[in-house]
Amino acid sequence: MARVNIVERSFTKFLSKPPSVRAASRTIVLATATVVVGSGILMRLIDHKEYANVWVGMWWAIQTVTTVGYGDVTPAATSGRIVATFVMLQGIAFLAIVTAAITSTFVARATKAFRTEREEQETQLRQMEARFDELDRKLDRLEAALRGRDS
Amino acid sequence: MARVNIVERSFTKFLSKPPSVRAASRTIVLATATVVVGSGILMRLIDHKEYANVWVGMWWAIQTVTTVGYGDVTPAATSGRIVATFVMLQGIAFLAIVTAAITSTFVARATKAFRTEREEQETQLRQMEARFDELDRKLDRLEAALRGRDS
Amino acid sequence: MARVNIVERSFTKFLSKPPSVRAASRTIVLATATVVVGSGILMRLIDHKEYANVWVGMWWAIQTVTTVGYGDVTPAATSGRIVATFVMLQGIAFLAIVTAAITSTFVARATKAFRTEREEQETQLRQMEARFDELDRKLDRLEAALRGRDS
Amino acid sequence: MARVNIVERSFTKFLSKPPSVRAASRTIVLATATVVVGSGILMRLIDHKEYANVWVGMWWAIQTVTTVGYGDVTPAATSGRIVATFVMLQGIAFLAIVTAAITSTFVARATKAFRTEREEQETQLRQMEARFDELDRKLDRLEAALRGRDS
Repeated sequence: MARVNIVERSFTKFLSKPPSVRAASRTIVLATATVVVGSGILMRLIDHKEYANVWVGMWWAIQTVTTVGYGDVTPAATSGRIVATFVMLQGIAFLAIVTAAITSTFVARATKAFRTEREEQETQLRQMEARFDELDRKLDRLEAALRGRDS
Repeated sequence: MARVNIVERSFTKFLSKPPSVRAASRTIVLATATVVVGSGILMRLIDHKEYANVWVGMWWAIQTVTTVGYGDVTPAATSGRIVATFVMLQGIAFLAIVTAAITSTFVARATKAFRTEREEQETQLRQMEARFDELDRKLDRLEAALRGRDS
Repeated sequence: MARVNIVERSFTKFLSKPPSVRAASRTIVLATATVVVGSGILMRLIDHKEYANVWVGMWWAIQTVTTVGYGDVTPAATSGRIVATFVMLQGIAFLAIVTAAITSTFVARATKAFRTEREEQETQLRQMEARFDELDRKLDRLEAALRGRDS
Repeated sequence: MARVNIVERSFTKFLSKPPSVRAASRTIVLATATVVVGSGILMRLIDHKEYANVWVGMWWAIQTVTTVGYGDVTPAATSGRIVATFVMLQGIAFLAIVTAAITSTFVARATKAFRTEREEQETQLRQMEARFDELDRKLDRLEAALRGRDS
């Protein structure tokens, strides 16, 4: 239950204060690499029989974090399975954030055309202000001419 | 067939009345946690041989819902396989909604710049109305001047 | 090689003439259900030893299409492995389209606010046209007044 | 460590200079097909015992790249596991880019309505310029009429 709360709370926090796409991409790649190396070493320490050396641990970690999961190496003890759960959730976060980063880049590319059009509109709006100035000046001149004749 | 209909109908309903990103994220995390705990207990009840205790059931559920699927624990009976199908589909929904939530957050961040530009445009449009008022007043004064001389 | 061409061509075609989100969602759910049932039956026909009955075939198909892949049932013959390749690619398409449909729904929800703002801008622009009409009328009246005095 | 740097750097480069959706889709499909064929052949060369022929290698590659990972064929030697790591990461890239391409297509479809509205706004802005020209002409005529009477 507590673990679900942590997942939910950190996810909600992420959504309300989203980091920049580049920062998020950087963080997730580094975090995932750290999780692979760290959990590989941890598994070796927890279960000497299944994990003959650290490389077996990392081999297990990389296939778990990418959700491939061959099953040629699997944790049997409860402690190892708890570690595995975190590696699996890291895998989901990895896939989700990588996909989200690439998607938002594609979407931003697509909306670049919009940005150009918008800048054109802004230029048009600014030109209109110049037109207003011109009309103003002409009206002032007209009024001056009218009053000039009266005097 | 009926099951496909349920998947399709609930999916179509979801798309036509989309919940807020935060509500959807909250719901999917809680629903997935419930499915993991629930199906873990259910598997223990269905298959005493493969699932020695509830923790084995949850260990199977977490690796199924994350689509890792080592295959060290698998349901052999038909009833267990039907439960497994729901857990797998929940896994797809979990991955899809988490990815969608993060993506839409990134996209919203990217379009924030648009929002600022749009507010500037609105200011420009409002200033133009003030210019119209000014022109109006000048024309009224001109007309009054013209009529005043006639009388 | 030919198979890669088919995947690439149909994908390019999909991107250039995208169906509506709802139509795509409907199609992918039905297509995936068809692939699960169809490949389940096909596997039973191809490999009587590994697939004891149609239900084993479908059990294999559902865990393949969701990319869980326990490995408790796997095709050993080349023909079965070719079928499996299609089921796996269908699984990728399923996950990708479901994720895309949910994401675009979330993004559309977020841009609804934009739509309202845009409608307000349009109202402002239309009101400006009314202001132009008013200025026009006043100028016409001024001109008429000026000419009327001359005659 | 060096490998993480390569993943991170190429990912950051991808995000800062995003290719067109169509080019990215084409490249990822071809790259993935190349990785499946290439790693299938490579595995056969590295491990003659597990991989009896090239087809077994490709069968392993396709289930790895789609992250299904049955585990019926797995690399045991370190060299094979290093190759496998690249195939797994290619699988993540494949899924992420395919999902991103489809999502951005759906989002672009949804924003097409925006494009039409924007074109209408541009037409309105251009018509306003015509109105300014008209007002200008009328004021010039008024001024000419006023000056003509004086001479």
